[in-house]
This record gives sequence, structure tokens and C-alpha cells, in this order.
Amino acid sequence: MSEFVDWVGVDWGTSNLRAWGLSSDGTVIVARKSDQGMGKLTRDQYPGVLETLLDGLVGNNGGALDVLICGMAGARQGWFEAPYLEAPTDLRGLLDGAVRPPMPNNHLAPAILPGVCQKAGGDNVMRGEETQLLGLATLRPNAHGVVCMPGTHSKWVSMNGTRIEHFSTAMTGELFDLLRHHSVLRYSLTEDSNGPERAEGFAAGAEVGLERPEQLTSELFAVRASSLLSGRQPGWCTGYLSGLLIGTEIGSRRALIGEQTVPLIGAPALCALYAEVLGMIGAQGEAVDGTEVVLAGLKAARAFIV
Amino acid sequence: MSEFVDWVGVDWGTSNLRAWGLSSDGTVIVARKSDQGMGKLTRDQYPGVLETLLDGLVGNNGGALDVLICGMAGARQGWFEAPYLEAPTDLRGLLDGAVRPPMPNNHLAPAILPGVCQKAGGDNVMRGEETQLLGLATLRPNAHGVVCMPGTHSKWVSMNGTRIEHFSTAMTGELFDLLRHHSVLRYSLTEDSNGPERAEGFAAGAEVGLERPEQLTSELFAVRASSLLSGRQPGWCTGYLSGLLIGTEIGSRRALIGEQTVPLIGAPALCALYAEVLGMIGAQGEAVDGTEVVLAGLKAARAFIV
Repeated sequence: MSEFVDWVGVDWGTSNLRAWGLSSDGTVIVARKSDQGMGKLTRDQYPGVLETLLDGLVGNNGGALDVLICGMAGARQGWFEAPYLEAPTDLRGLLDGAVRPPMPNNHLAPAILPGVCQKAGGDNVMRGEETQLLGLATLRPNAHGVVCMPGTHSKWVSMNGTRIEHFSTAMTGELFDLLRHHSVLRYSLTEDSNGPERAEGFAAGAEVGLERPEQLTSELFAVRASSLLSGRQPGWCTGYLSGLLIGTEIGSRRALIGEQTVPLIGAPALCALYAEVLGMIGAQGEAVDGTEVVLAGLKAARAFIV
Repeated sequence: MSEFVDWVGVDWGTSNLRAWGLSSDGTVIVARKSDQGMGKLTRDQYPGVLETLLDGLVGNNGGALDVLICGMAGARQGWFEAPYLEAPTDLRGLLDGAVRPPMPNNHLAPAILPGVCQKAGGDNVMRGEETQLLGLATLRPNAHGVVCMPGTHSKWVSMNGTRIEHFSTAMTGELFDLLRHHSVLRYSLTEDSNGPERAEGFAAGAEVGLERPEQLTSELFAVRASSLLSGRQPGWCTGYLSGLLIGTEIGSRRALIGEQTVPLIGAPALCALYAEVLGMIGAQGEAVDGTEVVLAGLKAARAFIV
């Protein structure tokens, strides 16, 4: 059984793969997802994975179905490298940088959007976030200020309309996972705890991180020492570690953030933690739906050429 | 074949175990070592490991052989817990806090020295370092100032003669290992490189760490971005990561360090890196032989009661 769509938008990340079949007016007709992220794939598996995911979708015009892809599929270690745009840059130029990976047949016509790199002001890279940022800028014309995208590698991006002026990346999420699973701190932590102890530990850790972001490598050890000396429970310590890392990330960006309302794009539970810490310095966090902005970004990128 | 000694000093760490049989005037008659550190042992294995290590050593007085132990054997997860002294504290009190673990026979008479903890001014713990510090204080009477002990968990200790006034711990070595083996940075790093590229990367990373210690979680990602964008080689990136972490550790302690000459107790190659970074801020590092100070510390601890 076939479903007719005008084109397909795809967000191909490290862990996950999501696709939306759209009508000509941008309505989502069908949504699909899979766990076949870049991290699990070799280069030659991408065409087959995409064909399987989009099985049964047929283009309205009878020809090859346009598939517009953002994310890690365009990385050097992904499917087909899409060279970076260099910041500062206007994201309305995203589609100009798209590349077309070869396919074994003419059913699908995929194009992969570039990521954004930065050389002046600190080497940095993003892939996937730029499409969300274009989406956010499209939904909020003429907005400017800093946008935070919490996650494994959190991005802080200074935007001006559809322009990326500058960005930085904090390895907060990855450090949390590393420390929780592989460091000496693991003896003091727990996998599952969302009780009041965790919230209390989170607030205590965030306060230390905000006040002394330069002391992170020392304050980390306090997690272990607290559990040995003060009988702090694993739930409290896990919250403390999380708060300390997010507090350090935000504490080292106080001058950038000021008292702005910061759009937060990411997993809702994580965005809520960032919003809590932003509130501690007199700023505000505002959760933004990640799926909504990536869809808006794919549509906007496509609109600039079609 | 038997060897006669007056007593035995033991440094029982997480990874290694070292023992020295001493004459009554403190001369080392026999030295032995093994890889049976705390990390590899269950509680009931300690007596057997110690008996095997000291096989053939006989006390001069014909009775049980005194064995004075410092380090992780006294940890809660070690052999037999030796409660901490609490800083600020005079290390001449170490032996008062020693505990005597039970043995299956009367051949050996082991005593385990306490570690030192800190509650006021930041929860913290050490085990083993306190004995080295007592040794250093004995070799340099009336010295005062900060002592650095680089390693997995680096210690920075403010000493005044035989007193510990305050100390902090930086998880620098553990973070380096975690990031090198388990993080996304591992794709940009190498295991073995001591060439000029590594030294150049080290100096560059140290400079950034010293200048912006609060930006560590962001500057870490630059290791990855540099290798993607600027073609930085694995040797350079590995040096950069090492320099960034040590630079951050030292950069966050500038007020503590000033322009002092800082005794460095640790692995010689690592101490040389710390000395290089201390030189960059106008201080000096002075390598101290770790074996010499732990032996001096064990002798001093014993002298305060025998």
C-alpha cells in the first residue's frame, strides 16, 4: 500500500533516525522513526536503511521522491560528507551547501544539508542543530540572542535572525555519562532516582558550579568525599553531579546570558533542569519543541530553493 | 633462607603494593613489590598477600614482626578501616590513629595508619599521601607552603611543618584517562606519542587552561573540532588535552600558588609536566622522590611511639 507525499524531511542523528512525509503545504502526512543512527552504520548501509524506512512512500509527481536530510549523515564518518558552512553565516544558505549522495536506483533523491563550523573565536562544529536553529528563526522572525541546546554536547549559539554569529559547545552530557559509569564517583551514584534527594543534590551542585566554574575538577571529587564523610545518599550525589556540571556550564557563560530568556531545544526533562539553573542567575529558560523546530528548519531550507 | 629486619614499612595503594624491611637505624635491607593493590583484592585476601610478600623476613627480636602500613589498605573498601584524622591536623598524630587488623597467626603484627579527611572548607579525603607529607616535613623541618601530588586524583596540600592546614583534590588524571579511552575525543587521540607535536600541543592546551579554567567543559570539545577542522594530528591533540587539564588544575589555584617553589610528589614524567605549567605562571616545581618521602614518613610515624 502506497502513501503519496510531496517530499520527505529526515533528521539523521548519531543515535536515532526520524523521517516525515510532507504534503505540498507542509502538513505531516506520515512520520517514521528508527534506531539506525550514524553510530550503528557503516557507509554502505545508509541507502538500504533509508529505502526500508521510507518503504511505500511515493512522490506526488511520479518521479524520484525528494528527501532532505540534516544531521550526522553528512559527517565525515557518516554517509556522504557535506562540507560545513563557516560561522558567522546566514542559515538561509544551508541548501546551497547540500550534497547528493549516490543511490542504487532512481526511487529516492536524497540531499544532505551541511553542518556549521567555526574557526575564528574557537574551533567548533555542529551538525543537525543548524537546521533546528533555522527552524526557530523562521518561527520567530527577527529574534536575536543566545539559544541553548542541552544534550551530550550542549550548544550555546548567538543568533541574529537567521544568522549564527558565534557558538560554543560544552561536553556536559558526555561528562555526566562518563563520570557516572566509568569513574571512581560511580560508587557513590545511582541509575534511577528522581526523588526529593536528587532534586536537593541538584540544587546544591548547581550553586557550587555557578559560583566556582573554574573549580570543576576539584568539586567533582567532593561527590565521592561527601558520600564517604557525610553519608550522602546515591540519589543526592547523582543530583549533585548533574547540578555541578550544568551549573559550571551556565556559570562560565554568565556574561553571555545576562538576564535573557533563553530558548532551550532538547529533551524536555533536561531542558527543565537547565531552566532551573538559569532561574538561579536571574535569567529564564523557555522550552522549545525540538521536533517542531527541526521540521520548520527542513521546510525553510527547502523553501529557499524550491 | 631468612633475612633479619627490625620492622617492615608498607605502602599499600590502589594499584600497587611495596614493602621495605628496615634495620633498627632505618637502613633498607630488603625491598619488595607486587601488583596486588587494593583494587584487585577482597577483604580476606590481605593477610595471605602480606605473608607471601614478606616470606622469609624474620624479626630481630624473635617475636612477631612489626609491619607498619599506609595507604588504601585502611580504606572502608580495603582490608580494615582506619578512621581518618580530620584536617587541620598534625601528622605526628598518625600512629595514634593506627588500627591492628586480625591475622591468622602470630608471625606478623601489622598496623595500618589512618588517612586524613576534611569537612570544613570542602569535603575531602586522602590515604597514603599523608604519610608522604609527614616524610617531606621530616626531611625539611619547618617548611611551609603548598605541596602538589600529581596523579589520578591530584592533591594540593597547604602544609605548615608537620601540620596539614587544608587540602583539595583535582580529578585530573582520572579525567584524562576517561576522556582518552571512552569519550568522543578518543577518535582524535593516540596512546603513544612523545614527539615534538605532543609537546607543542601540551603547551597550547596549558595556556588555554591557565587563562580560562572556567571554560574546561567547552575547551575539551575543541580537541575534537581542531582535529576535524585544522587537521591537528593525534599526538598534538593528546598533548593538548593533557595540557588543558593540568593548566585548568593549576589555573584555578593561582591565588594559592603565587610564585612559590612547589614540591611535586609523583611519577617523574608527570611531575615534569606540572613543573612546566608552574613555570608558565612564574612559580617553580621541584620534583621530590616519592619513595624517599614515603619511607621517611613511615619511619617518622613509627618514631613517634617506639
